[in-house]
Amino acid sequence: MAKKKKEAPITGITVLKDEDFSAWYTELINKAELADIRYNIKGFVVYREWATITIRKMYKKYEDLLEKKGHLPLTMPSLIPESNLLLEAEHVKGFSPEVFWVTEAGTSGKLPERLALRPTSETALYKMYALWIRSYKDLPFKRYLSCQVWRYEGKMTRPFFRAREFHWIESHNVFATMEAAMEQVKEDMETTYQILQDECCIPIIFFQRPEWDKFPGAVHTYAADALMGSGKVLQLPSTHLLGQIFSKPFDVKFVDKDGEEKYGYQTCYGPAQSRNYGAMIAYLGDDNGLVLPFDLAPIQIIIIPIIFKGKEKLVLDKAKEICNLFKNKYVIQIDDSDESVGNKFYYWELKGVPIRIEVGPEDIGKHQVVVVKRHDGVRYNVKETDLENKIDEIAQNYTKEIKEKSLIDFESQIEVIYEKDAAIEAINNGKIVCCGFCSIDMDAYHCAEVVEKEIGGFVRGKRVDEEKHEFATCLICGKPAECTVYIAKSY
Amino acid sequence: MAKKKKEAPITGITVLKDEDFSAWYTELINKAELADIRYNIKGFVVYREWATITIRKMYKKYEDLLEKKGHLPLTMPSLIPESNLLLEAEHVKGFSPEVFWVTEAGTSGKLPERLALRPTSETALYKMYALWIRSYKDLPFKRYLSCQVWRYEGKMTRPFFRAREFHWIESHNVFATMEAAMEQVKEDMETTYQILQDECCIPIIFFQRPEWDKFPGAVHTYAADALMGSGKVLQLPSTHLLGQIFSKPFDVKFVDKDGEEKYGYQTCYGPAQSRNYGAMIAYLGDDNGLVLPFDLAPIQIIIIPIIFKGKEKLVLDKAKEICNLFKNKYVIQIDDSDESVGNKFYYWELKGVPIRIEVGPEDIGKHQVVVVKRHDGVRYNVKETDLENKIDEIAQNYTKEIKEKSLIDFESQIEVIYEKDAAIEAINNGKIVCCGFCSIDMDAYHCAEVVEKEIGGFVRGKRVDEEKHEFATCLICGKPAECTVYIAKSY
Repeated sequence: MAKKKKEAPITGITVLKDEDFSAWYTELINKAELADIRYNIKGFVVYREWATITIRKMYKKYEDLLEKKGHLPLTMPSLIPESNLLLEAEHVKGFSPEVFWVTEAGTSGKLPERLALRPTSETALYKMYALWIRSYKDLPFKRYLSCQVWRYEGKMTRPFFRAREFHWIESHNVFATMEAAMEQVKEDMETTYQILQDECCIPIIFFQRPEWDKFPGAVHTYAADALMGSGKVLQLPSTHLLGQIFSKPFDVKFVDKDGEEKYGYQTCYGPAQSRNYGAMIAYLGDDNGLVLPFDLAPIQIIIIPIIFKGKEKLVLDKAKEICNLFKNKYVIQIDDSDESVGNKFYYWELKGVPIRIEVGPEDIGKHQVVVVKRHDGVRYNVKETDLENKIDEIAQNYTKEIKEKSLIDFESQIEVIYEKDAAIEAINNGKIVCCGFCSIDMDAYHCAEVVEKEIGGFVRGKRVDEEKHEFATCLICGKPAECTVYIAKSY
Repeated sequence: MAKKKKEAPITGITVLKDEDFSAWYTELINKAELADIRYNIKGFVVYREWATITIRKMYKKYEDLLEKKGHLPLTMPSLIPESNLLLEAEHVKGFSPEVFWVTEAGTSGKLPERLALRPTSETALYKMYALWIRSYKDLPFKRYLSCQVWRYEGKMTRPFFRAREFHWIESHNVFATMEAAMEQVKEDMETTYQILQDECCIPIIFFQRPEWDKFPGAVHTYAADALMGSGKVLQLPSTHLLGQIFSKPFDVKFVDKDGEEKYGYQTCYGPAQSRNYGAMIAYLGDDNGLVLPFDLAPIQIIIIPIIFKGKEKLVLDKAKEICNLFKNKYVIQIDDSDESVGNKFYYWELKGVPIRIEVGPEDIGKHQVVVVKRHDGVRYNVKETDLENKIDEIAQNYTKEIKEKSLIDFESQIEVIYEKDAAIEAINNGKIVCCGFCSIDMDAYHCAEVVEKEIGGFVRGKRVDEEKHEFATCLICGKPAECTVYIAKSY
């Protein structure tokens, strides 16, 4: 049982994050009213207002950036005929254990063919791509969907991290050459850094995943691991080089400049998921509740009137005046409920509202207010004449400040390791192991199993950015090392 | 077979809208690439890029307005347990013929209970409302979902108008009194006017629907009929007074100020549907293709460089200069493809881009460009120094101009009728019939059947705004008239 904090009121979080992360996360979800797991289908989660608003803002950032990079949106049906799913062998093998099937409709009973609730959209979309793409002039063909997918997950439900229905963005692209497709993969990785690291303040690093851990139907998978601290990682978005693996069975062809008909080269990328939100609140949150980047907060500024008998009007009028000053620029609200001031402070800290303005009769006399930043608790007495400048300054720097605190230097997390025993020790000490490995092809799978069983970590793959280390032999089997890999504990 | 227009190129629309509306609409959908009905599940339609962008802009307007009026967004699972659906008898009777059922999952086979793909979300949401709402302080409780629903429709698929999966917004609200609920219904009707009439330029009027035509589980239904011209109407959004019909079986209760536990009064409202988009493009479009309100166009300004040999750089540089001038304010693009100028004109007219700027070498010499408005074809020679002002002026007035042309005065559409034969003639002459009716309760259903069979129209219900007409007897049965109703042909 985790130590309870003394000072928190009944509505606040009572568990310390460092002492029991899992209990802390559950309390955060419940008390900040972010999700509700009481919906009466196992594994299906309701996302409440506060989470929905932030998730939408995150998705909007992705959509805008994808559109800026030349992707256009499409709207696809959610159902996929079983016959489509069967077209690519690896893909169907990977996904069919997780498919929900629609088999009946209305009063007419059985449908002629089972329809899958899409677990992912390749096999729906690429049938259409075959109809739409004709010529090299249609390429590059860059599209995306904002939609939800369903997967009959066996593992335990955890709001935002794992559920049987979740919302995401998936982008699907066709190119004339393998090189152009690989350039897209690089662009996708850059997009991921721009949103997750720069906007959501989650430190990430990309790995090329081993063969046994890639997307079913991909040539290669490149996945972002969030650095969650203490050497633990969490898989976030991944982008996949599909090559011609799908274009051949789905007949995605184009007539090239030379007049010849050729199969397209494809990529797909799942940049946004509710999991990103889960990672963000889990990583940035503290013992008082949510910490949110300024742009992503459903309410950015909360005004707390400090009411004393006889001064009600004075204080509320000033609160309204301040609210009006900022309402066209920021999402701002006055909390004029009849809760105590202390409870209001706790409540809005729990909700992660970035800026609190306290308006009391004494300060009004001095023509000033108190301004408090959520993420570090810093308080300012601000003269009314300076208020607009001060708030703008805080708003502008808020996310930057969170990012500076939260970014983890990957190099400082790793330990270069040559012996299995040293690897076990490093993993136990909260380090990410950097070592030689025979390869990341399927024939190295038995070495990866040893890593999982004996070292207690997972082979995350080959680093995508510049590799600084080189090894002669595989950490596990001692054969010549084809590559350098990283081993880490994972959520 | 409709007369073919001579001047249109192969990519343009060849059917005149007035001569064969249905063929015109199908050509518009295909040639402007708005939807694709070739997806391989019957009744499921793919919405393409151009339509998806506009529909999103429409939904965003609704979402912003709903949030301004105090509704908050939620994210709900798409599946509903059969046992939830069974809780309200009228509701299940109304919807169960249209439900798609998920019965199997993964390799484990049959699910313990059938799960409905939501046909609408009342029976999913209200289970949660029962958990969330505790006290009068939680009321009014105003929420909305942006989601898709599935209905196993028997009628013919028509892109945007009818399909087995469609996207919509649904708002679900709980109040302490019936009066407060009825105020919400009025607010919903105002919201509908604000978006559909003011932003989408579709003329509408609200009717209280007869008992036989209301939402399954509603006390009353209030529905917007779009006035599509020639006396024909099309049902668009509706708002429903649910009273305590759902709150009792779903246990949506609150402790009132007097300490007593009471059932809430509910409303629900479906403001946005892809059908709104269908109505808009069908109503505003012309023989050259789409006409779109300025805010809703995926591209607002298209620049066509008129290239002559030797002048390529001059013209393209000027096009880029103009593009840069506006790119932070409007969605603007240069069409520098190798199509002919004429084909470019046709193509972007077909797509409904509001403003075309033509840049040619001769005009460059005169320091001017040609600007053309899509909706009325008006051309201007604009001096470069005036261009920014002129474009701003056109942008500001464009939607207003469309609205002025497109709004239909309801009074001018109706004919006051006292005899059945006169009603038949009026309907055939493209009028909406205004007449006395015994009532709009279920016992008037047989009179409504006569209207449908013999007059060829449908009883749309009682007018919601001020009623100007009064009748002594029912048009059909001759009994004393309890109300005035309107009869019209409907899409």
